[in-house]
Amino acid sequence: MDDPARAAAALDGRRLLGNLGSLAQIGRTAQGGVSRTAFSEDFVAGRSLVADACRAAGLASHVDEVGNLVCETDRERSSPPAIIVGSHLDTVANAGLLDGAYGVLGGLAAIDAITSASIRLRHPVVLAGFVNEEGAGGTAAMLGSKACAGRSVESDLHERDESGRSVAELVVGIGGRPDDAPSAALGRRGPLGAYLELHVEQGPVLERSGRDIGIVTGITGRVLVDVTCMGRAVHAGTTPMEAREDALVAAALVVGAVERTARRGLVRVATAGALRVEPGVRNTVPGRVILEAELRDADRTAMSRGLDALDAAVAEISASTGVRIETRVVEVVEPCATDAMVRGALAAGALACGASCAEITSGAGHDAQSFAGVVPIGMCFVPSIEGVSHAPAEATRDEDLVRGAAVLAASIVVLDRTLVASPDGST
Amino acid sequence: MDDPARAAAALDGRRLLGNLGSLAQIGRTAQGGVSRTAFSEDFVAGRSLVADACRAAGLASHVDEVGNLVCETDRERSSPPAIIVGSHLDTVANAGLLDGAYGVLGGLAAIDAITSASIRLRHPVVLAGFVNEEGAGGTAAMLGSKACAGRSVESDLHERDESGRSVAELVVGIGGRPDDAPSAALGRRGPLGAYLELHVEQGPVLERSGRDIGIVTGITGRVLVDVTCMGRAVHAGTTPMEAREDALVAAALVVGAVERTARRGLVRVATAGALRVEPGVRNTVPGRVILEAELRDADRTAMSRGLDALDAAVAEISASTGVRIETRVVEVVEPCATDAMVRGALAAGALACGASCAEITSGAGHDAQSFAGVVPIGMCFVPSIEGVSHAPAEATRDEDLVRGAAVLAASIVVLDRTLVASPDGST
Repeated sequence: MDDPARAAAALDGRRLLGNLGSLAQIGRTAQGGVSRTAFSEDFVAGRSLVADACRAAGLASHVDEVGNLVCETDRERSSPPAIIVGSHLDTVANAGLLDGAYGVLGGLAAIDAITSASIRLRHPVVLAGFVNEEGAGGTAAMLGSKACAGRSVESDLHERDESGRSVAELVVGIGGRPDDAPSAALGRRGPLGAYLELHVEQGPVLERSGRDIGIVTGITGRVLVDVTCMGRAVHAGTTPMEAREDALVAAALVVGAVERTARRGLVRVATAGALRVEPGVRNTVPGRVILEAELRDADRTAMSRGLDALDAAVAEISASTGVRIETRVVEVVEPCATDAMVRGALAAGALACGASCAEITSGAGHDAQSFAGVVPIGMCFVPSIEGVSHAPAEATRDEDLVRGAAVLAASIVVLDRTLVASPDGST
Repeated sequence: MDDPARAAAALDGRRLLGNLGSLAQIGRTAQGGVSRTAFSEDFVAGRSLVADACRAAGLASHVDEVGNLVCETDRERSSPPAIIVGSHLDTVANAGLLDGAYGVLGGLAAIDAITSASIRLRHPVVLAGFVNEEGAGGTAAMLGSKACAGRSVESDLHERDESGRSVAELVVGIGGRPDDAPSAALGRRGPLGAYLELHVEQGPVLERSGRDIGIVTGITGRVLVDVTCMGRAVHAGTTPMEAREDALVAAALVVGAVERTARRGLVRVATAGALRVEPGVRNTVPGRVILEAELRDADRTAMSRGLDALDAAVAEISASTGVRIETRVVEVVEPCATDAMVRGALAAGALACGASCAEITSGAGHDAQSFAGVVPIGMCFVPSIEGVSHAPAEATRDEDLVRGAAVLAASIVVLDRTLVASPDGST
C-alpha cells in the first residue's frame, strides 16, 4: 500500500465522529441545533474543546491575534512551504453540527492519521479553525481566514454588529489582540504552499449525483441587489384598479424576473429572499416594497449577463405598472477558481480511498476564498442529506463523514509529494 | 325660493370650515396629520370641542353609554320618526382632518342652517358623532354606530386591543357605561325614519368624474383572505433551481392572481396589502410566505365569483411551483344597498343647490352600514383631492366642503317632507 492509501486507512473514524458529537453539545439549542456564533461564550467553549482534541492528538495550538485557533509547529522563512488545512469554528444561529466544524475536526483527524501511519511529510501542515466565517450580527464574513491569508482586516475590525459593539471589541472578548491583527498572517512565519478545505456540500447536488466526494472547481460569485418599488399607498376600497400604482404588484413581477434569470440559464441560481411591504396592511394599496435578491454564478461574465437581464426586465415592469423601480447593486463577491494541482491531489486522494468523485461548483462562500490568489486552493465536499444546511436538520451519513476525512488525509500526502520547494523556500 | 333651497342658502360655510380647522388642532401630529384614535385623550378632547360647537348652535348634547356624542331633543314613542345625521369622531393614526369629522360638523352646519332659515321640520333630527368607526388597536370597527342602531355590541365590548385592554374598559375611560350599552339604541327613545351620512369620498372617482356630489348607491362588501405558501427554506447558493420549493415565487404569482380577479372585472377592486416572508433573509430560499388580501364588490355574487377564481388560480400556482398553498377566508363583510327614497331626497337636495351629482359605490366601510336594515339609509360624498385618505394629505376643496353640507341641509328638508308618519309614529 502506498503512503496516501496508508494515511487514509489509518483514519480513526470513531474519534472523528466522537469529536463532532462532543462539539455539538456546546451551544445546543432547544430545536436540536447548535448556536456557536462568532464572539459568543459558546464559540470560545467550542474552540477550547477543539484545542483539547488537538492536544490529545499531540498537536500544540494557540489562539491568534483575531481569535482563530491555529495548530502549527515552528516554521521559519527557510521552511518548506506549508500546507494549510482549515475551516471555521463559528456557526450561524441554530445551525447544524457540521458546517465548519467538520472541516476543522476532519482536518485534525487527517493529520492524526498521517502521524499514526508514521508518514513523514516534507512540508509543514498548519491546521486552522477560523472565527466569524458567517459574519455574526451583520458583520463582514470571513474575518479569521482573511487575517490568516494576510489580507487587511482593518475595515472589518471597525465594523459594528447589530448591538453596536465594534468587531475589534468583540475580538478582544475572545482573547484576540486586534491592534496586532496583521501578525495573524500565516505567511509571516514561513512560506505557504497550498490551502485545503473539507466541507459538507450544503446543497443536494452531490447526493443526487450518487458520487462520494465533490471536487470543487470554483466558488460561486454573488451579486447582491436591492430592488425598491415606489408606488402610491392609497385606500384599497376606494381606489379603482386603473388609478393604482401598486408597489407589491410590481415587486411580485420582479420576484418572477429574478427567478427567470436562472431559469433561462443566464446564471446558475437566483433568489429573492427578503421582501418588505410598506405600509403592509390589508386595506391599503402597497406604497413601497423593498426586495433583497441575489444572483450567483462561478463565471463573472454570467453574473453581469444576469444583472443586465434583470435590469431590462425591471425597466419593462416599471413601464407596464407605472411603479418607479430602483435597483441597487449592494455588493459583488467575485467568483474564484480552485487550483488544478490541488484538484489533482484531491482526485488522487479519492482514488487512493476507492471513493468516487464528481466536479462541483460551490454555491456557498467558504474560507478558501480568502486564500485564493495568495496560495493555490482546493476544496472537497461530502454529500449533505437532502441538501439541508444552516438548520438543525443539516446532516451527512457517518460513512461519508469518515470517507471525506480519509480522502483529505490521502490528499495531503499526495500534495506533500507534489509541491516542490524552491531553494529559497517558495514553491 | 322653496324650503330646501332656503336651507342650503342659509349654510354658514365660514363657521363649518372654522370648526373643522379647530378640531384639526386636537391630536395634531408632527407629519401634519391628526391622531384622535377612539378611546384616546385627544378623542375625548375632540368630542368636547364638537359638543361646544353644538351648544353654540343651540343644540344640547350628551355622551351616550358607549361614548358617542349624541344631540337630540326629547323624543318619545309617539314622536314622528327621527332623521339621524351621523358620522364618526375618531380617526386612524396620523389621519387627515376630514374622514368622519366632516360628516359630524357638516351635519351640525346643515341643522344650524335649517334653524337659521326658520324652517320647521315635522320630524326630529338626531345628530350623532360615533366612536371607534376605525377599529382602534385592532378592535372591531363601528362600535358606536352599531350601538346607536340597536345592534348588539356585547362581543365587541369583550374584545381586547393590542395593549390587552378590553373595549369595555376603554369605553369606561371615555365616560361610557358599557354595562348599559343597549340603552344607546336611538330607537329606544322614539321611532327612527332614516339615516343620512355626509362623507369625503376617500377615493378619486368623483374628482375624476367632474361632478360635485356623489350619491352612494351601495357600500361595498369585502372578503378578507389569508394565503399561506409553504415551501422549503434552503440555502440560496447551494440549492439548484430545479430542487427548490420557493414560497415567495409562488406568493408573487398569487399577488398577480389577486390583482387579476379585479382586472378581469370579476370584482370591483382586489388588493394584496400585506406579505411576510420567512425566514426573510437574502441568502435563504423563502420557506413560508403569508399574504393578506381582500376582494371588494357591492354585489355579493361578484364577491363569491372573485373568490372562486382566486381559489382556482391558487390551485394552478401550487401545481406549477410545487409549493403547498392554503387560502383561508378570514372575514366576510356583506355589501349593503342604500334606500331609493333617501337617494331621491339627496338628488333633490343637490338639485336645490344647483350641484351636479353622480351615482357612486362606496369602496370604504361607513357607519351607515350599521343602520342598514334598521332604517332606510343614504350617503353623499364630496370629492377627495387625488383620492387621498387615511393620510395627512387627505383634502377636499373648501367650496366642495361647503356645498356638501348645503346639499345635506336641503336633503334633510326634502326628506322631512317625504317621510310620512303613520298614526302610531312609524313610517
